[in-house]
Amino acid sequence: MTKAPVTTDSDAAGSKPYTLAIDAMGGDRAPDIVLEGLDLAADRHPGARILLIGDEALLVPALARHPQAARICTVRHAPASISMEMKPTVALRVRGSSLRVAMESVASGEALGVVSAGNSGAMLALAKIIVKALPGISRPAMVAVQPSAKGDVVMLDLGANIACDARNLVEFAVMGEAFAKAALGLEQPTIGLLNVGSEELKGDDRLRQAADTLRAGVLASQFHGFVEGHDITAGTTDVVVTDGFTGNVALKTGEGALKLAFGLLRRVFETNLLTRIGYLLVKPGLERMREWIDPRRYNGAVFVGLNGIVVKSHGGADGEGFAAAVDVAMDAVSHRLNEKIRARLEQIEMLSEDNSQAADKVAG
Amino acid sequence: MTKAPVTTDSDAAGSKPYTLAIDAMGGDRAPDIVLEGLDLAADRHPGARILLIGDEALLVPALARHPQAARICTVRHAPASISMEMKPTVALRVRGSSLRVAMESVASGEALGVVSAGNSGAMLALAKIIVKALPGISRPAMVAVQPSAKGDVVMLDLGANIACDARNLVEFAVMGEAFAKAALGLEQPTIGLLNVGSEELKGDDRLRQAADTLRAGVLASQFHGFVEGHDITAGTTDVVVTDGFTGNVALKTGEGALKLAFGLLRRVFETNLLTRIGYLLVKPGLERMREWIDPRRYNGAVFVGLNGIVVKSHGGADGEGFAAAVDVAMDAVSHRLNEKIRARLEQIEMLSEDNSQAADKVAG
Repeated sequence: MTKAPVTTDSDAAGSKPYTLAIDAMGGDRAPDIVLEGLDLAADRHPGARILLIGDEALLVPALARHPQAARICTVRHAPASISMEMKPTVALRVRGSSLRVAMESVASGEALGVVSAGNSGAMLALAKIIVKALPGISRPAMVAVQPSAKGDVVMLDLGANIACDARNLVEFAVMGEAFAKAALGLEQPTIGLLNVGSEELKGDDRLRQAADTLRAGVLASQFHGFVEGHDITAGTTDVVVTDGFTGNVALKTGEGALKLAFGLLRRVFETNLLTRIGYLLVKPGLERMREWIDPRRYNGAVFVGLNGIVVKSHGGADGEGFAAAVDVAMDAVSHRLNEKIRARLEQIEMLSEDNSQAADKVAG
Repeated sequence: MTKAPVTTDSDAAGSKPYTLAIDAMGGDRAPDIVLEGLDLAADRHPGARILLIGDEALLVPALARHPQAARICTVRHAPASISMEMKPTVALRVRGSSLRVAMESVASGEALGVVSAGNSGAMLALAKIIVKALPGISRPAMVAVQPSAKGDVVMLDLGANIACDARNLVEFAVMGEAFAKAALGLEQPTIGLLNVGSEELKGDDRLRQAADTLRAGVLASQFHGFVEGHDITAGTTDVVVTDGFTGNVALKTGEGALKLAFGLLRRVFETNLLTRIGYLLVKPGLERMREWIDPRRYNGAVFVGLNGIVVKSHGGADGEGFAAAVDVAMDAVSHRLNEKIRARLEQIEMLSEDNSQAADKVAG
């Protein structure tokens, strides 16, 4: 393969539709990790067009060292960047940040989505202001896929909204169902509402009201009812809906528990010569298991409910992890996630014209 | 050993101080499991005096089949019992239930604590009304010990209070610290407040206010600040404080994730002949690991903040599990859990007389 010259905006016609805008300056080891991720992405998505946004003086020479990534990337200069520690309110005021330029490219229709490993609070704030929420959605949420005993499970909200009311939870159910269809290819994903017990009377008014609305609406046949913490990893439902506080704690607690199990397992295998031999005998299977529950494989949380695909990669992700986040964005784009959400919202509004009380509540 | 005749209340003087009152009728397989647990308890706590409460017609012959348990038990008849499905409001109106009689024996000072594998909602409701909260505690909480990479961690609230304010969280910190001293034997347990991030600005007003109070009060040197979900199993702090909704979800999510890890591990070991040999080589270590994180070993959650020790055993626990719950109650009694809580509350009130603003908030 001949080494392609790096393309920058000044060379490009400017009218080309970019699949994704990538914030090259976000994350703990940007832009190196981002470019390593894009090398892998170029291989997996050869037809993609990437608008690579950041400091041109850094990115042009960096891309020259990553000819794979260079094949699909066009550099767009952004004079500023947002640090991981910056408060969202401060980040909103930074002019020409790579994150802001990325969001603007989605708002203008130039790109279909954004991927950033940067400051997630700033990302959500900029996305809400620039990309804007989908009509009918009051609160965008953070969604991601988790491992379970029965395959992948979609969970939201993972931290975008600390406090939520019944309506927010119902919107999360609508968005989570569409996400499960787009990301997991399921036809009729089942939905559970996270609670402290599965009985109808458990929890608070907010949860009981959201459950009533879901039981009476278009998602009724897919709504399983309340689920508990252990149902997430049991895979009781395809989608688990909760507020952003509980979802964030549950996500991190589950990851922590898996890490504890692997740590204990390592000690068991390192006990003596026999256990070391035992390790060698099960190593291939163990590595498959570890890969399967590897947080890197699940990297890439989506801020869902916006007029574009906005994907957050973990700030500490490596190239493989960043490439997984790009996969998530490409999946959401190619499986038309937002059209699925829009269709469901329209269906609910349609029903509300039929005077369905439940749908009224959802659309209200 | 000669088989002792079963003692019932009518034989007893009535003035004897009982260490624990045991609800013999609570749980999925009562009273058999309860008696199996008490056989083990009699061995571990030969000096204990148990008031065994339930249907005399069932318990007297059952005890005759459990001579070990019979050595430490006196039967007290209770004509009714509370089912697992009964609503707390209904359970409160049942006269002469084994759970009510058990609570009354603590309120009268006859017993120092209660253990039941029954309906936890009914248990909390009866405990609040009959045993009553400790002076200075507005909301009793459910506390238990969890495994972590650095040893045992105390977590509360696990579901007694779905919604909590800043003051409740500060009370939980006081009770959790006393519990860590009594149950884990720690001198200066560290305390973390569960949140979605460790930075001071994360979370809601309620959390920030509780953190401010703890930072300025008598527990300041032991208060670590905010912790996240993964810190529970990492053992970042000895005590993790949260509201009952989040705590319940986190507890069950962590248990579910460990179960997932063991399920995957089983599949790895069952792959082929080599992996089965590998399993045999690591089996002893694996069994120690499984025992260490065995939920049975952690059975026995305490409703803390009451004028007596009230311990909830899992409804589905076996005899070993029930015996662990009795151990928890015996530990709390012998390590004077409630005196430790009372002392800490007095210390806080003392400081509030010195006009310490932070202590004012706690004592307020």
